[in-house]
This record gives sequence, structure tokens and C-alpha cells, in this order.
Amino acid sequence: MSSLPNSLKNISLFLERLPGIGEKTANRLTFFLLNLPEEDLKEFASNVSDLKSKTKLCKNCFNFTEKEICEICENGERDHSVVCVVETVLDLLSFEQGRIYNGVYHVLHGKIDPLNRVGPDDLKINELINCIVGNGLKPFRTEIKEIILATNPDMEGEATAVYIKNKLLEIKKLGNSEIRISRLAYGLPMGANLEYADYMTLKKAIEGRNKF
Amino acid sequence: MSSLPNSLKNISLFLERLPGIGEKTANRLTFFLLNLPEEDLKEFASNVSDLKSKTKLCKNCFNFTEKEICEICENGERDHSVVCVVETVLDLLSFEQGRIYNGVYHVLHGKIDPLNRVGPDDLKINELINCIVGNGLKPFRTEIKEIILATNPDMEGEATAVYIKNKLLEIKKLGNSEIRISRLAYGLPMGANLEYADYMTLKKAIEGRNKF
Repeated sequence: MSSLPNSLKNISLFLERLPGIGEKTANRLTFFLLNLPEEDLKEFASNVSDLKSKTKLCKNCFNFTEKEICEICENGERDHSVVCVVETVLDLLSFEQGRIYNGVYHVLHGKIDPLNRVGPDDLKINELINCIVGNGLKPFRTEIKEIILATNPDMEGEATAVYIKNKLLEIKKLGNSEIRISRLAYGLPMGANLEYADYMTLKKAIEGRNKF
Repeated sequence: MSSLPNSLKNISLFLERLPGIGEKTANRLTFFLLNLPEEDLKEFASNVSDLKSKTKLCKNCFNFTEKEICEICENGERDHSVVCVVETVLDLLSFEQGRIYNGVYHVLHGKIDPLNRVGPDDLKINELINCIVGNGLKPFRTEIKEIILATNPDMEGEATAVYIKNKLLEIKKLGNSEIRISRLAYGLPMGANLEYADYMTLKKAIEGRNKF
């Protein structure tokens, strides 16, 4: 690296911090950037610079958005009585890219993972409960008929689903007994990562969802 | 992608243009960026923005540099009588990372590739000739004793080496008969890519270089 000028080295070192990118790949990408049009680089730089200030979490479902409420929650044509609970926005995108689901979402931003010191209070679980008992500011989500627990089919995802299920059962005892709690069908192989599942597998999983 | 806000979507679409990065990876990288400290992003953005204006080609060897002459050409402790001719700066970096070579370089910025309409005049071959006959502005490279042709061991790389060899032989006829022309040893497997060779293979290749 010693022979790379700083203008390239700093970019390469930054890219090396990204997941899945080693030193050689970082150099290749940096050199590729050097061949792109100046205006494209400036635009990209400006987007990266504004990334954190412009991106917020939807106050309703915790999807990423530039506004207060995300596109999906604002969409009156979606079924706001069905809420799909996912671990991350990447999981949400997997469903959206497949166009196989017309309900809304709730993003937990993680999963219960004691080894990494992530407990229920670090996730958006209380917000989900508030949303169901009607304390949140919901534009459409007035009557929730079904909660689909779409956490990943691995240990932590299962534990998160069970935890949420128990919380929801407490609410049902309080009177909201009409809410159906379901889980994605085990079309997904155990231990797999939802984010990389193909659309057809996700479709099967949505269609075959079971009472939980 | 429809459910991603523009602040994220624009970055993801840009990253998808980079080699080896598909839609899902681009999304993952974008979300990863979102978790980095604001100041790191701003610094990266500023570096990307300045990349093209700050980065120049060394007037001597055509390595990348922020100055007129690159670090390697400026380094008086290197052996300026041996010039290693490489296709790209990435190839140069492979040698430098291995710390197995103490001469200087000449970067061709490509290889003769008629199928992709790259001819000798599109490369820095004339500049290499000028450098040898002494027309360039060389801080140290006064007496060149050896030219190592370190183009890749594939069809185009071989053709480029042969072309340069013939050019150099013409010069030798004009009197510079003391210049040794060599080629990397065939420790490198044919059809391989120099950029990804391990240091030991490169070391063998440098040590076993042959008269060409």
C-alpha cells in the first residue's frame, strides 16, 4: 500500500472496512472509481455525506425512510390489518422484491441474542406491543387481525419469535383475542438466512404460515 | 427497491455499478454504511469527491500519484537502472506488497488487445521508449541496464511483451546494446492473473526471469 497516493489509499482503506471486502478487492474498487465520471463520484459523495442525516426510521414500522412515515405504511392500498414482523430492513426488502406480500411490516432491528448482549429491550418489541394495543400513531393500522412472526429460522430468531408470541398472548388475555399469531412456514431450511432466500421459497413460506 | 428511501437507494444503485457487487450486496453495504460514524462517512465522501482531481499519473512511470513524480520514482534508494514494465497499477501493487523488488516500474495502463480495439498507441509504450532513449524527465533513471517485461502470461500480455521487445531491439541496434531485456519466469501458470498471484510465486517469477 505504501506506493499508493493518499487520495487512493484513504478510499481503499475505507472500503476494506466494509463486510466481504479485502485489501485486493478494495484496491480494485478504488481503481474502478477512478474511471467513473467525475459528476457521478461527486453525486455519490454527496449522498454518502447526507446518508445519516437524511435517513430516519419510520415512526410506525421502523423501516428506513426520509419522511416521518415510510412509503409502505402510507400506502392505503396495502392490508394494514396484517403485520409481518421482521428482524431487519433487508428482510423486509426480500419480501418486497418478491412482491408476494401486501400487508405491512414491523422491523425489530435485530433479534434476541444473549451471547451478543442483545435483549428484548434493545429491539423494537415494546413498540410492536404499543402498536397493537393502539398507543402508537398509526395512519391506517387501526384493527390488526394477524401478526406474522417472520424472524429467521435460526436459534436467535426462534427465541425472538417465542418471546414475542408470549407477549402477544398476554395481550390476547386482556381482550384482543381476535388477533391471529402466525409464523412463516418451514419451507425455509433451518439455519438459513432469510435475506438470501429466493422469492419462491419466501412465497411458499408466506402461503404455508401456521398458527404459532 | 421501491420501499427504500432515496437516501439509501441512490447509494445502493451506485454500489451496484462496481465490479462484483450485485443488488443484495449493494443493499448490505449501504445498510452497513448507515451504521458507521457520521464523520467517517463525511471523510470518505470528501475523498471520493476529490479522487479524480487529486490523482494524477506519475510523469515518469505512470503510477498513480498526487504529485508530479510518484514515491517510487522519487526514492533514491531504489535501483533506477532496472525497470519493471507492468500492465496496471494493481500489478505494481502486487510486487510492492511482496517487497520482493527494488527497481522501478513503468505502467502501460493496459495490454495490446485487438478484440477490444486496444492498440500499442493506446498504451504508454512510446513513453517507455522515450524514457529509455533519454527524452523523458527522469530524476534518477539515467542509465537503464535492464527492462523486465512483467505483462500477464496470457495471450494479450504475451503479444504486448513481444511488441515491446521488438521495439527495444530496434533501439539496441541504434547503440544502446547494453540493455538487457528479460521476462518474468514461467513460475506463473499460463492464463493466470498477475494481480492475484501470491507473493512467493511472484518472487520465483522475479528471480527466474529470462532473457527475452
